[in-house]
Amino acid sequence: MGNRSQRKRTRLRDLGITIGRYPTGPMNAITDVDGVLVGHSTIIRGSGKLARKSGPVRTGVTAILPNRHDTYLNRLAASGFVLNGAGEMSGLIQVMEWGLLETPILLTNTHSIGACSDALVNYMVDRHTSIGVRHDVVIPLVGECDDSWLNDISGLHVKEKHVREALENAHGGPVSEGAVGGGTGMITCDLKAGIGTSSRRLTVGDDIYTLGVLVMSNFGHARDLRIDGFPLGRKLERLFSEIPTRRELYGSIIVVLATDAPLSAHQIQRVCRRAALGIGRVGSYAAHGSGEIVIAFSTGNKIPRDAKDGDYEMKILLDRNLNQIYEASIEATEEAILNSLCMATDMEGIDGHFSPAMPLDLLQENMQKYYSLLSE
Amino acid sequence: MGNRSQRKRTRLRDLGITIGRYPTGPMNAITDVDGVLVGHSTIIRGSGKLARKSGPVRTGVTAILPNRHDTYLNRLAASGFVLNGAGEMSGLIQVMEWGLLETPILLTNTHSIGACSDALVNYMVDRHTSIGVRHDVVIPLVGECDDSWLNDISGLHVKEKHVREALENAHGGPVSEGAVGGGTGMITCDLKAGIGTSSRRLTVGDDIYTLGVLVMSNFGHARDLRIDGFPLGRKLERLFSEIPTRRELYGSIIVVLATDAPLSAHQIQRVCRRAALGIGRVGSYAAHGSGEIVIAFSTGNKIPRDAKDGDYEMKILLDRNLNQIYEASIEATEEAILNSLCMATDMEGIDGHFSPAMPLDLLQENMQKYYSLLSE
Amino acid sequence: MGNRSQRKRTRLRDLGITIGRYPTGPMNAITDVDGVLVGHSTIIRGSGKLARKSGPVRTGVTAILPNRHDTYLNRLAASGFVLNGAGEMSGLIQVMEWGLLETPILLTNTHSIGACSDALVNYMVDRHTSIGVRHDVVIPLVGECDDSWLNDISGLHVKEKHVREALENAHGGPVSEGAVGGGTGMITCDLKAGIGTSSRRLTVGDDIYTLGVLVMSNFGHARDLRIDGFPLGRKLERLFSEIPTRRELYGSIIVVLATDAPLSAHQIQRVCRRAALGIGRVGSYAAHGSGEIVIAFSTGNKIPRDAKDGDYEMKILLDRNLNQIYEASIEATEEAILNSLCMATDMEGIDGHFSPAMPLDLLQENMQKYYSLLSE
Amino acid sequence: MGNRSQRKRTRLRDLGITIGRYPTGPMNAITDVDGVLVGHSTIIRGSGKLARKSGPVRTGVTAILPNRHDTYLNRLAASGFVLNGAGEMSGLIQVMEWGLLETPILLTNTHSIGACSDALVNYMVDRHTSIGVRHDVVIPLVGECDDSWLNDISGLHVKEKHVREALENAHGGPVSEGAVGGGTGMITCDLKAGIGTSSRRLTVGDDIYTLGVLVMSNFGHARDLRIDGFPLGRKLERLFSEIPTRRELYGSIIVVLATDAPLSAHQIQRVCRRAALGIGRVGSYAAHGSGEIVIAFSTGNKIPRDAKDGDYEMKILLDRNLNQIYEASIEATEEAILNSLCMATDMEGIDGHFSPAMPLDLLQENMQKYYSLLSE
Repeated sequence: MGNRSQRKRTRLRDLGITIGRYPTGPMNAITDVDGVLVGHSTIIRGSGKLARKSGPVRTGVTAILPNRHDTYLNRLAASGFVLNGAGEMSGLIQVMEWGLLETPILLTNTHSIGACSDALVNYMVDRHTSIGVRHDVVIPLVGECDDSWLNDISGLHVKEKHVREALENAHGGPVSEGAVGGGTGMITCDLKAGIGTSSRRLTVGDDIYTLGVLVMSNFGHARDLRIDGFPLGRKLERLFSEIPTRRELYGSIIVVLATDAPLSAHQIQRVCRRAALGIGRVGSYAAHGSGEIVIAFSTGNKIPRDAKDGDYEMKILLDRNLNQIYEASIEATEEAILNSLCMATDMEGIDGHFSPAMPLDLLQENMQKYYSLLSE
Repeated sequence: MGNRSQRKRTRLRDLGITIGRYPTGPMNAITDVDGVLVGHSTIIRGSGKLARKSGPVRTGVTAILPNRHDTYLNRLAASGFVLNGAGEMSGLIQVMEWGLLETPILLTNTHSIGACSDALVNYMVDRHTSIGVRHDVVIPLVGECDDSWLNDISGLHVKEKHVREALENAHGGPVSEGAVGGGTGMITCDLKAGIGTSSRRLTVGDDIYTLGVLVMSNFGHARDLRIDGFPLGRKLERLFSEIPTRRELYGSIIVVLATDAPLSAHQIQRVCRRAALGIGRVGSYAAHGSGEIVIAFSTGNKIPRDAKDGDYEMKILLDRNLNQIYEASIEATEEAILNSLCMATDMEGIDGHFSPAMPLDLLQENMQKYYSLLSE
Repeated sequence: MGNRSQRKRTRLRDLGITIGRYPTGPMNAITDVDGVLVGHSTIIRGSGKLARKSGPVRTGVTAILPNRHDTYLNRLAASGFVLNGAGEMSGLIQVMEWGLLETPILLTNTHSIGACSDALVNYMVDRHTSIGVRHDVVIPLVGECDDSWLNDISGLHVKEKHVREALENAHGGPVSEGAVGGGTGMITCDLKAGIGTSSRRLTVGDDIYTLGVLVMSNFGHARDLRIDGFPLGRKLERLFSEIPTRRELYGSIIVVLATDAPLSAHQIQRVCRRAALGIGRVGSYAAHGSGEIVIAFSTGNKIPRDAKDGDYEMKILLDRNLNQIYEASIEATEEAILNSLCMATDMEGIDGHFSPAMPLDLLQENMQKYYSLLSE
Repeated sequence: MGNRSQRKRTRLRDLGITIGRYPTGPMNAITDVDGVLVGHSTIIRGSGKLARKSGPVRTGVTAILPNRHDTYLNRLAASGFVLNGAGEMSGLIQVMEWGLLETPILLTNTHSIGACSDALVNYMVDRHTSIGVRHDVVIPLVGECDDSWLNDISGLHVKEKHVREALENAHGGPVSEGAVGGGTGMITCDLKAGIGTSSRRLTVGDDIYTLGVLVMSNFGHARDLRIDGFPLGRKLERLFSEIPTRRELYGSIIVVLATDAPLSAHQIQRVCRRAALGIGRVGSYAAHGSGEIVIAFSTGNKIPRDAKDGDYEMKILLDRNLNQIYEASIEATEEAILNSLCMATDMEGIDGHFSPAMPLDLLQENMQKYYSLLSE
């Protein structure tokens, strides 16, 4: 079994598997949306028996900067959707009320929301000394999943320095995927997963728009997994039947979606509901204990904090052009989840719990046969 | 092309295609939930050029009686979910506010909501003369989809007599599917569809529960259609490329879900969101102009209108047992939609618009190969 | 008792009672918002014992045309809020989904939603023959309250001709208030009420905006009534203690709010929640059986149905300027409700049920003393 | 001016001012609901110029324990309502999804959400070592308001020890009000406020139920303030016109509501909306930058974490009895806010910012005259 993941990890498309009908951006990543930066801090330490506060540690933080380092002063239209609320995205209430995003987004484990909030406040106030003085206080955006099957989650190992590291290392270009950052200890459909990303390009009239998704994926059982519709999970369930899997009430996924299409907050809320359908396509039934939360933003308009006028002009995509955005958001969400599976490697965590990587050869082989059915 | 649907129509399972892992009830229909009755009134008249108020007519009404003819006095816990609100289920606001269902549910075309509301008020007041006198007035539940590609929708051909017919003919047992009742003029993924139903049985401890779904299905494009994950629509798109399809801003689906599992209104609302994932599995991306609306109820508790006491005891399923309900609701929704496709026949409507039936041989043949991949 | 309402009815301000701090528009009516038209059809017939379908009849229809007769082709940003959903505004689901208004709004009694929907579809299709052919079908907006304490509600006395009358008579300028149109049989805090309206003017930078509210008001008990905070209802309760009042599970209010301030659908949704606070200020606690529903729109942007481009420029008020809109919406809602009380006259309805008019002398006298306390 | 608040602070009722028609519980506090405990940790340190991380400090934490120290194992039905989401109650998403409360509720300043979350996780895991191992991880409930006009909010002065203090000191019986705990630096309608509480008793059949509210109140401008409808704020605005008040985008209120009436999560959500009307009655218009968030729970049913059966019996109040609960929740919310004003004393905070206490003599004198008008 040990050599299952010896094969070098590759992204889904490198296996010849293509989700949907829209082309990807150059990196097939959320960073294809201009201005979006991503940084990780990964904490892996120790092995063996769980001893709270000692470890083993399999966790981290992922930071998404929606508008480079400038989101506080030049805010973005944003919204969210909670398909299943057995999870937390602190700060989402304000994003949905104002339809505005004004801080970076952090992804981490459930019990480290506090540490991340604290650190993000400090980081914001350091950069913008007007906060709480001349300007509003900030409510940090921190999304979580539960990595307690591999990680000493109650040890609270995410510290301010890790958050700083994720924020300060954030960059455009290729994004690390799999067991990194907030995704370090995450599991999807009984396989090792974590962070994944994907993007789509679409054309409206003369305009080309990009839409990108980044997920921290941590839901489901093997038997539920579908790859572009194909229920590979039924085979995986048999294959991995001897490996103990985590307890029932478990899981979650946070989806972060970015686009440069000029969308209103109202439209973005609608897009978020479609991303939820993308989660469903991979096999999620949004289990009782699993939080499926989507947050999305558009870089197509900047809403300045210190505007002088009474009103402003906002560029807004006509609704009839939303369908392309909807389709692309489903495709990118599905592929981002699958990339998190394809790029993660085997991991052993607390108490010897083992999470196997997706067997890429098996995946590729099955999908080749599947696609050949289609071209008949 | 004409002989495509010569084959006798059969339900999905009769083709050897099985959705999901739960067994069905005896009829594989919403009427497997004890007390749920279904009746149709189908109106098909004329052919050729559209002449408003003359026809051609391809429409009707479907009535779902949640608690036999007694829903007004012995109400049921109920709720709903709007995946995409480009549609209407009049009365849903009150169902979601009170968490209660107190009238039958009617399904019809968009422009006939008024006629159905009117007729349902009359029907209710005839049966319960206390309405508006000693008891509350009623707000009828009427869901709609747009059948204007086949039907003279603005001719308002649904009359009080049709509503009465659907209500009075409502019965338990097998349910007619395809181009009947409210589904008469409906189209799904560019194929003729309409009414479909399916059910699931599940076991919680010593209890066996039944969950049933009935849909009026009218969404999507051929290329989106998936059967148990398999993207048959890509083949159908090529096959039917020469047939004109309806314009873009079109579609909708109404899902009615019933269960005898004792669920609270709050739990039912959560179940409704999972039914929405079932719509997604068939290929819907909840297009801008398509209304995806789910309404659900539980027969597990009756809430009497004329209770004497201050409070009552409600039996409620423990949340950890919801996952089975969630899975079953996705499965049954998916299969109900596919049944609507399998059971509908070719139809020609206004202006010679032609809607082809699902080619069952092609479907069966492809799915056999698909499933053989899985058992390898 | 008969001479209580002999005094000529006057609007609240004519009694020296002023709600809030913003000035009104010239008519102190929703029609102060340019382009908004209002029409009524009032049906009063018969007296004595209730005989279903014969009468007595105390009902009607009120039509609000948001953008003259052109709302279908040049749509408006819109949204809604359901403070308590024990009522119905059919079509609201689509308004909230799309953030768009594309039909007139009708207000009527609960059991006449169907007749109004039907008639509005016909009216729309007559005017726009492209509906259901080249363009979308329409989902009529019809809000209701329960007038069954005075009116033979189950007699379904609102017919297509009444709806046409309300739509075709709709005009700008002064608006009839009290027991007219949809408000004919409505009661508020045990006093005769019905339709009321009010408006506010506010300045943002160099721009002057108008906001107007029209209500169909039908909620509450005498003891709850407050006038600008003053609990006059406690006096009224004693005064009218001998008059039988309607049964408990009763009531509702529909609030229609219009503004020319350029608001996004998202902002309008937020404004709607404040209008709900205005209902609360009059004394409503949103009783279990009472539907408190708000719908609002902005004429500040027209969203054309047949746009050629992929996107459009929308003028949007900066959020920090919303507070004035919020305050104005509370003030105008409160005053509109009070105007409906001040302008309605005594009415006797079915089975001799009597609804007394607000005693204006008592009101004026009490409020004078109240205000003199404030100026001390 | 200095002697304005020399008068010993008293609660509203001690001034002869009574809100509403229901009697209070013995303490007129949220702790009148059996099992509800409240604890505070108050941090007041330094004076003069703001120096981030040094002070001055005017802040703290308030802990509400819904079911003594046992909420994790014996959970309560709960829900919430966001009247205006420009604020945060972390963990509310899960409460609303599950309709369950399983942790204490903490109230603090905006920038200390992180510290409180962290500390609450530690506290919970210390008490329940099964968390994250055999049982679910926890998502702490932390509500915030912005105290940055008096407090060095970005100094993050709330530490784990303060949270522990608030949790461990939590007790039944009388509750400290005014500038204590999370309310230490809070301001309402330009007057010093903070924590306030109130309760109501009501009778349904043979049952007596208690409903209690605790607020952390921090919203509004002087001119908006109303006491039982009377616009005292207009007088206060003139009286305090020389005192600088905080900047515009400011404020919030968190309402925590408890009752022993057996309510379902669905009913509790409806009750929360009425508490929002209570906020409105004091004069709030839910300003753009002000977060009005309500959370509520019922102790009437305990939902065990480790149930054996598939379902359970829940006692639920019949809906028609909700009206009393609605009225009581409005009354108690209004009185709790006013108690926070009556019990707070003058405070000077950062940069010499001064927040005056409510002048009780003026309040009492005005209200006596007001009430005498009513009894005329």
